This record gives sequence, structure tokens and C-alpha cells, in this order.
Amino acid sequence: MRKDVYYGEYLQLQKILDAQYPESDKEGIDAHDEMLFIIIHQSYELWFKQIIHELKSIHSIFKKNEINDNSPDLYQVVHRLKRIGTILDVAVHQLSIMETMTPLDFLDFRNLLRPASGFQSIQFKIVEAMLGLKLEHRFGKEYYVSQLNAADKETIRLTEENTSVIEELNKWLERMPFADDNGLWEGFKASHGDGNNFWQDYKLAYKSSLTHGETENVERFEKLFFDKDFVADRRFSNKANRAALFIMLYRDYPILQLPYQLLNQLLEIDELLSLWRYRHMNMVHRMIGMRVGTGGSSGKDYLKSALDKHYIFAEIAELNSFLIERRNLPALPIDLEKRLGFVHQ
Amino acid sequence: MRKDVYYGEYLQLQKILDAQYPESDKEGIDAHDEMLFIIIHQSYELWFKQIIHELKSIHSIFKKNEINDNSPDLYQVVHRLKRIGTILDVAVHQLSIMETMTPLDFLDFRNLLRPASGFQSIQFKIVEAMLGLKLEHRFGKEYYVSQLNAADKETIRLTEENTSVIEELNKWLERMPFADDNGLWEGFKASHGDGNNFWQDYKLAYKSSLTHGETENVERFEKLFFDKDFVADRRFSNKANRAALFIMLYRDYPILQLPYQLLNQLLEIDELLSLWRYRHMNMVHRMIGMRVGTGGSSGKDYLKSALDKHYIFAEIAELNSFLIERRNLPALPIDLEKRLGFVHQ
Amino acid sequence: MRKDVYYGEYLQLQKILDAQYPESDKEGIDAHDEMLFIIIHQSYELWFKQIIHELKSIHSIFKKNEINDNSPDLYQVVHRLKRIGTILDVAVHQLSIMETMTPLDFLDFRNLLRPASGFQSIQFKIVEAMLGLKLEHRFGKEYYVSQLNAADKETIRLTEENTSVIEELNKWLERMPFADDNGLWEGFKASHGDGNNFWQDYKLAYKSSLTHGETENVERFEKLFFDKDFVADRRFSNKANRAALFIMLYRDYPILQLPYQLLNQLLEIDELLSLWRYRHMNMVHRMIGMRVGTGGSSGKDYLKSALDKHYIFAEIAELNSFLIERRNLPALPIDLEKRLGFVHQ
Amino acid sequence: MRKDVYYGEYLQLQKILDAQYPESDKEGIDAHDEMLFIIIHQSYELWFKQIIHELKSIHSIFKKNEINDNSPDLYQVVHRLKRIGTILDVAVHQLSIMETMTPLDFLDFRNLLRPASGFQSIQFKIVEAMLGLKLEHRFGKEYYVSQLNAADKETIRLTEENTSVIEELNKWLERMPFADDNGLWEGFKASHGDGNNFWQDYKLAYKSSLTHGETENVERFEKLFFDKDFVADRRFSNKANRAALFIMLYRDYPILQLPYQLLNQLLEIDELLSLWRYRHMNMVHRMIGMRVGTGGSSGKDYLKSALDKHYIFAEIAELNSFLIERRNLPALPIDLEKRLGFVHQ
Repeated sequence: MRKDVYYGEYLQLQKILDAQYPESDKEGIDAHDEMLFIIIHQSYELWFKQIIHELKSIHSIFKKNEINDNSPDLYQVVHRLKRIGTILDVAVHQLSIMETMTPLDFLDFRNLLRPASGFQSIQFKIVEAMLGLKLEHRFGKEYYVSQLNAADKETIRLTEENTSVIEELNKWLERMPFADDNGLWEGFKASHGDGNNFWQDYKLAYKSSLTHGETENVERFEKLFFDKDFVADRRFSNKANRAALFIMLYRDYPILQLPYQLLNQLLEIDELLSLWRYRHMNMVHRMIGMRVGTGGSSGKDYLKSALDKHYIFAEIAELNSFLIERRNLPALPIDLEKRLGFVHQ
Repeated sequence: MRKDVYYGEYLQLQKILDAQYPESDKEGIDAHDEMLFIIIHQSYELWFKQIIHELKSIHSIFKKNEINDNSPDLYQVVHRLKRIGTILDVAVHQLSIMETMTPLDFLDFRNLLRPASGFQSIQFKIVEAMLGLKLEHRFGKEYYVSQLNAADKETIRLTEENTSVIEELNKWLERMPFADDNGLWEGFKASHGDGNNFWQDYKLAYKSSLTHGETENVERFEKLFFDKDFVADRRFSNKANRAALFIMLYRDYPILQLPYQLLNQLLEIDELLSLWRYRHMNMVHRMIGMRVGTGGSSGKDYLKSALDKHYIFAEIAELNSFLIERRNLPALPIDLEKRLGFVHQ
Repeated sequence: MRKDVYYGEYLQLQKILDAQYPESDKEGIDAHDEMLFIIIHQSYELWFKQIIHELKSIHSIFKKNEINDNSPDLYQVVHRLKRIGTILDVAVHQLSIMETMTPLDFLDFRNLLRPASGFQSIQFKIVEAMLGLKLEHRFGKEYYVSQLNAADKETIRLTEENTSVIEELNKWLERMPFADDNGLWEGFKASHGDGNNFWQDYKLAYKSSLTHGETENVERFEKLFFDKDFVADRRFSNKANRAALFIMLYRDYPILQLPYQLLNQLLEIDELLSLWRYRHMNMVHRMIGMRVGTGGSSGKDYLKSALDKHYIFAEIAELNSFLIERRNLPALPIDLEKRLGFVHQ
Repeated sequence: MRKDVYYGEYLQLQKILDAQYPESDKEGIDAHDEMLFIIIHQSYELWFKQIIHELKSIHSIFKKNEINDNSPDLYQVVHRLKRIGTILDVAVHQLSIMETMTPLDFLDFRNLLRPASGFQSIQFKIVEAMLGLKLEHRFGKEYYVSQLNAADKETIRLTEENTSVIEELNKWLERMPFADDNGLWEGFKASHGDGNNFWQDYKLAYKSSLTHGETENVERFEKLFFDKDFVADRRFSNKANRAALFIMLYRDYPILQLPYQLLNQLLEIDELLSLWRYRHMNMVHRMIGMRVGTGGSSGKDYLKSALDKHYIFAEIAELNSFLIERRNLPALPIDLEKRLGFVHQ
């Protein structure tokens, strides 16, 4: 028979609630708000642990050679990515608690923390790495590496050795049969031009949808979807790009609904991470102005430069530039339509 | 010279991140979402610790025999109450993370937790007790006590031995000089009736402001502000009620602005606690329907009954029934007006 | 060729921004906050119009005799219900703007509004009626009717003549083939008892999952799922209840995912409406205390009583009491499993 | 006797709810989401009207030659700025409703709107102008002007003719007596150096607080607070900067509490406007990718460049770089301390 479970023991509160040791206490300095500073960071670290828990399960599903659409696999991936989104949404809101600490209150203990800084949050780096942000693509990577101790550097290295979500996503998109399997496209009637090739047809439709000032998009279209050399330095191959665009265009068909939600939710996560960085940057700006961060960085400037470089799924976002109006979409062959649906009708 | 501070050590992450032991793991059962269940509760407990930290500092300010309005005391009380409000606001939002767990996912591990339950969160009980909710006024107190182990019961008992925020507030209101100090009211000219007593005058003004169906408010007015016997079972004395109403009415004068924010912020906290209980109740309802909670309670019903009984500052809220239109407010004697303002003009 | 569109004309801002006429202006009374009062209500009415727009489209989809799972129908229903949820979420948040108006500021113009009141928001009543709240089930219906002018009463009557979302939902659930079609259940092997009937088997599994104090749930099970007389005063028939429970239990199968999201989203909307009423009630309480509302109602008390009675989808929520652990779920016959999936594998 | 007020008439709902005319309806095109697009923009315009209402009242208070600290003036300014903050907070959240419109749904009607665009929201431009953003400091001002019709251009011109909040704020700060009135500083004892001048003393304290890499802040200190030539192209004079910093440093004294909240709330509004632009930018990016906006702009790029340039109160934010630890603050002369407090003690 199982032992009775007691709330405080189950949650290991003896550890959780005995983990707050303000530096100001050690120095005999009165700094009421250091407790808040510690607790909010601990709360963030708990949530990062949860996000990593979700990402690990997502990763193990993607690592299968095949994701059976009739299994709960894809549903779970999407569901857990949505949960990560919800967590990040609360994490952004949580900054409002930090903002109740005024600059003068922060100064009471700020100098005691040197040279520690948020850069050293190894779990947050793991989250970014698992999604697909490589060390070599980080803004200011030398500085960033210099802040970590040997054990943490090794942890990052090991994380990067594994494939990331974006890499697994690329493989999964490449395996998708519909957009490129000629067998499925028999009987396709082009709505533009004479050809019977879907992508040729689509390119013509796209071209005619462009307005003044957008003509250079055609060249980009060619590069993204057909130029093998172009994708050399990108994560998505031409084929993966085609599959992703196909999903976006025909997302109303049952079998493409979860894939569409998957792509959309990754953009959502990118946006939330970006929002987190942005609000974080504004908060730092308001808290320390142009002063140097406790870790020696220029604080706000770092965060600002990271904003642009740290979008992980920008390649998916870009595909939105290549949609056309739904009423102009090429109609699919009946046989293909059938294969995009349910057995039961 | 101080030792370099490192982020992970400073935050004691070796404890914080090694405190998640799912019961399902021990039983070899696959229950992905138990990690979420543990981490969200740990996060709540961290925030309760922070709220207690704030309440302790507020309490120690109130315990002074005198709060000097020219010191930062009252500002700090209000500032920290606002922070508690911000924390509760995020805590309510945080329920949306819990709501990503579906009933079926919860069932994967729910029975393994018996008889533990959220009732056993001793820190939350301390928060309520510090604000002023006594054990004897709790809904279902026998059940509640039966859930706690001896150490936790003792903790609650000790907390209740101290005066609560609402009791200290009553004393502080009673000390307020303006509403009742006859010396300050010389030269007061009644706008209603012939008397020169502020409260007689105000009562007449209030009476004439009532519309059809509100006449019983007059009797209530008498009881709250002047009937000593009536207040026997309440926390606010007649005098404290008068002081609080005076603050609400003349909050535009400089010296009453922080006191007004204080009263207002306590109502805000009550509302947020109530909102937390309400959303919590809805969530439990959706999660387990009419089934019995892991602690053996009827779950939703408990939370529902607690909703009404657990308002702590209802006596302040009630005072809003006794305001009159600002343009009908009795004008204050010039000398009193001066004493409500700044030295510098 | 189309005429150039100009932002202000397109949005008819000449109407929208010339629709604020404070009563206090007419009386020459200074009441700065009446503008806020007008504008926030106008904003709510705009959002109610949008919600009605969504509900109409949802309704017209449900009115089809058949919803083809291979069409975008169900996706659109779910998508638009989610949008309604997002709107309600912002609507609740929007109350925080109203809360910046203090009781004294409200008193500046409150009496000028009599006897108008929020009860007269005919659009909100339409929203409730379209979802399924009948006039006859409203708390305090006589009072409510007495507040409306003839045209508005007629509008409500006409709305109620149409079937509501919950009624259409019942029909749609009754049409669902899987849970009850014996042809699909050939070869089913009971995991409990000897029978080969899914519902007998499930009842035994449910029974054995109950803990002490939950035994009366068995009787309820019988009533909800099999007793024709019991459902006489409810919106969901036994058959619809069975279909809904089946969806909840086997939601991982592709064809049941959207149906599950549909049920879940209706609960979400119910919760958000309830939260809206609850925060509204708290706000009224704080604003006018125990005074009579401008429309003559007892304000807070009305809202409180309405809280319990106005849950529209409580019958769905109740089904959560009848789930069992996923690992004890009866396995489905292979042929049925296939029919719950995609053509393509 | 007053005529009975009826909800729908009071709110002019016949105008508000008859102001949605989708372009797609005129063209006979099915575009369900255009209603949402219209209504969300109308809701924004209502809120902009409310913000302008608040700004006008704030402006008229600031325009007085003197703001009496013993009047409700400053309280009202702060209270109404906080309301603007709450409105902006909801406005940002409201973007989540827009985000329920997918790129493909937007394409259904997007091209019908040309060349209208959000640039033509004249009320939003007025809000920015009233706060202090001049046309000449806008990013891409030529483009911006080219989008407006003659009447709207004139409206902007007239708004800019009035002094803005930031200009009035500068004047008010310059009038503040404490930081610079030598009479009040008699008996001041320097804690650093030999001098008896507060600002000399403070400069030394600040200097000694700087860490490695912050030395160029000293030069900046000199420029902001003492170099008359430097401020030529700024809104805040040296004197205003000194007053603002003094408020930030000694905000615990009663008479400086509202001034501190004022400065802080303006930063809050700047941040919220910036957050609004940022989320807006991300949304546009996700909606149209790299395509040209309906108004012909490059959409995302415009918004991005505007992000940096459109901070209105950056000069206040910068002052946070010049704070020192509270425990090192020069103590004030007793007589000055007294003048910063209440009459009543």
C-alpha cells in the first residue's frame, strides 16, 4: 500500500522555500527587494525546466523515422507547443512584477551581484538551442561564452550536438508526400499557363498577384523553392519550403490542419520569445539606463542587437510573403483531395 | 574582497531544479503532465513566500505606535500592497497554464496523489491569516483542520496570535485625528440643518441623496458609524469607520491620498484573492466535475462556499454605500484644510 | 475602377466619433469621467456585434443537415468559437479600464442616467440567447423584461424562435455514428464483464474507478446516458451525451480532434462569460456598495444570482465526472479505429 | 423633469452599430473576416478618442501658470495618465483578437482596401503630437504626410501649434523650487569634498559610484545638468533635468511623491506605446511577410524604424543612469526636509 502523500513533501517545499539567500543579508545591508529579485528568477527557472520537459518530449516524437498521422503524435507535439506558448505568455506578464522594483530599490543591492547576470541562465540557453538557435549565430557569442563556467559550456555543447526542433522539422517537411509526389498529381489542370505542373502554375498565379513594388519577390520565390544553392546556409531545403507553403495554402483539408497549427505555433513561440526579449530590454533600460550590466555587458544594447538575430523560425515567417488569395488557388485533383481527408464520410 | 557571484549558485538552482519527483515515475506509470502539476504548484509557493515577505514588512510598519506621515512608512505600505496585487494578478493568469492540462491527462496521475490536496498549502493559509481571515471564520474549518499535520496547525495558531493587517488598520484609523478632533472643526458651517457638527451634517446630506428603495441604508449608517454595540462582532470600530469614510470623501487633500490608496489597494487584494478562488473553482469543476477531490473534499462546493465567506475587507467595501456626490460635500473649515496640506505652497 | 479607400471614411469615423453625448454636459455639470463611461460601453457593443457576426456564421453551418468532416465546416466553427473566446478575454480585461473610475467620480453623473442600465444591452442578451440561454431560464426574468422597450422585447423573441447553438449541437451529436453504430462495433472485446457491448463495458470500468463517497455517480451515469425520461428537461439527449463522452474519451483519433476542441471551446466560452459576470459583479459592488442600480435593480445581488443560473453548457461540463483513466479505456475494434483516421497513412 | 434615459439611445447605438460597411460586400466577395477588421479598428478609434479626452484635461491643468500642490491638480494629472496606461495595456492585448485572423483570411479582402492604411489614423497621430512627438522628428515624415488628406494635415498642424505635454512638463520642472533654491539649502553639509553646494557634492558621489567602463558617464552628467549649449536641441533644460533627478532621488518625501509618479507614468506610457508598435510590427510581419502594405509602405520596415525614433520621454529615461545608492545620498538640511512634508505631524 502506498504511503499517504502530503502536499509539502510532495512538492519538496523544504528545498524550494529554503533557497533564498540575499547577498545583502550577508553584508548586513538593508535591501528589502532582493528577495523579490531572487524569487522571480527562481520562478523563471522553474518554468524553463518545464519548457525543457515539453521540448524533450516533442523532440523524441520528431526523432521517430515516421510520424503516423493516425497516431496521437502530431496532436501531442502541437498541444505541448501551445503549452510552451502559454507559459511564455505568463512569463512576459511576470515581468510586471519585476517592474514594481524601482531603480533606486534595485541599486540597494545591485552591485553585490557582480559579476553574475541573466546571461548565465543556462536553461534559457538550452531552450533556445533545442529550438534551433546555434551558438555560432548568437549576437556577441564571445562575450556570452566568456560568462559561463566550464560545466555550463559543456552542457550547451552537448545540447547542440543533438538535432534541434527546426532541423527535425525540416526532415519531417521533406518527407511530406502531397506537395511533390507526382503520382498524386495526375489529372491536375493548371489554372494559369498551359502546363500541368502545380508549382509552375502556382508561380504564375503568385506573379500575377503582385502589385507595384513587389516584383523582386519573384526572384526570391525562385530561390526559396527551387534554387538548391540558395538554401545552403539555411535550415529549410527547397523541398521543405514547398511542403510548408503547401500546408499554409491548403490547411483546410483535414490532414493538413495539425501541420498548419504546428507551423503557426512555432511562429507564435518565436514572437513570444521576441516579446520577452523586447520587454526585458525596455525594463533593463528603465532600470539601469546607460549603465553597465552586473555581468559587464552594455545591458540594453546587447538585448537590442539580439532581438533581430535571435528569430529562430524566420524562414517559416517569410513564407507568408508567398501566399495568394484563396479564391485564386489552383484546385486539387479529386484523388489527391480524397487522400487529404478522412476515411469516414 | 567578495567572492564572485555566479547566477546558478546565487539562485540555489541545485535545490530548485532538483525538487521535482513525480509519483508516477515511482510507479513506472507514464504521466507526462505530472511535471507541470508539480512545477506550477512550486511556482505558486515561491510567490506565496514573496507575499509573506511583503506582509511581514507591512506588519512591522503598522506595529509602530505611530506612523509618521512625513516618513516613507505609508508609501512603503502602499507600494508593497500594490506589489502583492501585481503578484496575485500574475497568479490568476498562471491558472491558464494549468488549464492546458486536460481532464484525461490529469487522470493519468491524479489518484496517486491522495490524500494530498491544495488545502495543505500552509503558506496560502498564512497569507490569509496575516491579512485577517481567522480560522474560526473559515468555511468548513473542521475539514480544513483535519487535513493539516501537527506542525502546520501550530504554524497557523502562531500566525493568528499576532495581530493581523485588518486589526492594525483599525487601530491606525482610530488614531487618525481629522474626522473626529473637535479642535480642528471650529468654524465648521453646516450645509444641511442647523448644527455645526460634521457628522450630523453629513448624515442629513446622505439621507437626502437616497432614492426610493434605499431608505434602510439610514439605519445601517447609524449602526456603522455610531452604534457601539453593533461593532462588537466586527473588526472596525465606529471611529475607524468614520475615519475611513472621511478618507474616501476627502481623498483629494494631500495628506489623505496615501491613506485612500491604502484602503483602495486592500479592496483590490480582496478582489484578486476572490478572483483567484473563483477561477480556481471553475478549473476544478472542469477538471474533475462532481468527483471527490484528492483530499476527500467535494472540491468545487468547498471553493464556492468559501467565495462568500472569505472576503477579508468587506467592511471597507461596504463604506462605498455611504458616499454622496462630491458637489454636495460639506466644505471644510479653512484651518482644517490647511492641516491636510503641505508646508510648502 | 474602384474609388480610393480612405481610412476614416472606410471606418465611418464621422459616425463613430460623433456619438458621445454626456448627460452631464446637457446639465452643465462637470463630470469628466462620463466620457469614459460612454466609450467603454460603446466599445463593448462593438464587440458584441462582432460576436453575433461569428455566431451567425456558426449557426448557419450547424443548420446544414450534414456537416461534412472533409469540408472546412467544423474547422471554421471551432476557429470562430476560439475568436469569440479571445474577444471575451479582452472584454474581461477591459473592465480594468472601468475600474480606474472611482466611486466618487461615478457619483458625479450616476443619477443622471436613471433608469438606463446595462440590463438594456440587447446585443448581450442576443449573444446569450443564440448560445442557448432562454428567457424562461433567466434569473429575475420579470424584472429583466420590464426593463426593455417593445422593439427590444420583440428582437429577443425572434432570436429565441431560432434554434440555438446548444440545440444544434445536440442534433449534431445525435447524428455522430461511432459511439452507437452497432455495425462498427463488431469484434469488440469487453475488458470488463463478459458482454460485447461497449457501453456496458464502460459502465463497469467507470464503476470500478470510483472511490469512497462517489457511489451516487453510478445512478447519475445511468440517468444521463440511458434514462429517456431523465433528459426530458435537458438539452442533451441520452444519445448526444454518449456521443459527447465518446469524443472526450477517444479525442486522440484524428476525426474526433475537432469535435473535442468544439466541446472544449464551448466550456471555455461559458467560463469566460461567467468570469465576465463575476468581475462585473465585484466591480458593481465596489462602485455602488449596497445602493440600488440606476435601473432600479439591487445591482450586485442580481449579478450574483445570475452567476449560477446562466451557465449554458453545464451539461457538457458535467460529463467530465464520467471519465476514466486512459490506460483503462476499452480498446476499439481495428475496423472502427480505421474509420476514425485518415485515408493516407 | 428629465426624460427617461434608455441605454441604446444614450450610447447612440443606432450610429455605432450602423457603421460597418465591408468593401467585400460591395464587391460581392465572401470575406467573413472583414467585419472583424472594421470593428477592431473602430474600437481602437474609440479608445484614441478617450485618450485625447484625458490628454486635453491634463494639458489644461499644465497650462495654468501655477499648479498648487495643495489642490487636486497633480493628483488628477497622474490619475488620468494612469488611465491612459490602462487603456494602452488593453489596446496591446486587443491585438490578440486581430491575430485570430490568418494571413489567408486577410488576403480575402486586403487588396480591396488600397490605398487606405493605419497611417491615416489621425487620432493616433494627435495622441503622439499632444504628448510631444513632432512631425519633423518622425521617421519617414514625407511618406507619412503624403498619406493624409488636406483636412487631416491641417488638424495635425493645429495640434502641433499648441504646447505638448513634454514642453509643459519642462516648464513645470523649471518652476520647482527645491533642487535649486539657494535659500532652502542653507546649512547643507557636503558628504563628498569640501563644498557646500548640493550638485557639486552629488557629482562627486556619482563619480565614485561608477564602475569600470562607465567613466564617460561623467561627461554626460556635465552636459545634461550644466551645459546650456547641450540642451539646445532637447526638450528638457539643465534646470528641468536637475529638478527631475532630484525628484527621483528624494521621492520618499511627501511633496515629491506625486511628481515621481508623474515622471514614472510618462515612462510607462512611452513603453506601452513602444510595445504597441512592436507587437503591431510583429503582427504585420506575420500577416503580410515582405509584401507591400495597403498604403504602399514597406510595412514592417517602417514600423521597425519608427520604434527607435518615436520614444517621446527618452530624456526622462536617461536620467536613470545618474542615480546613486540610496544609502550614499546627501542628507538634506532640516529646514528643507520640513518644507518637503505635511503641515500636520
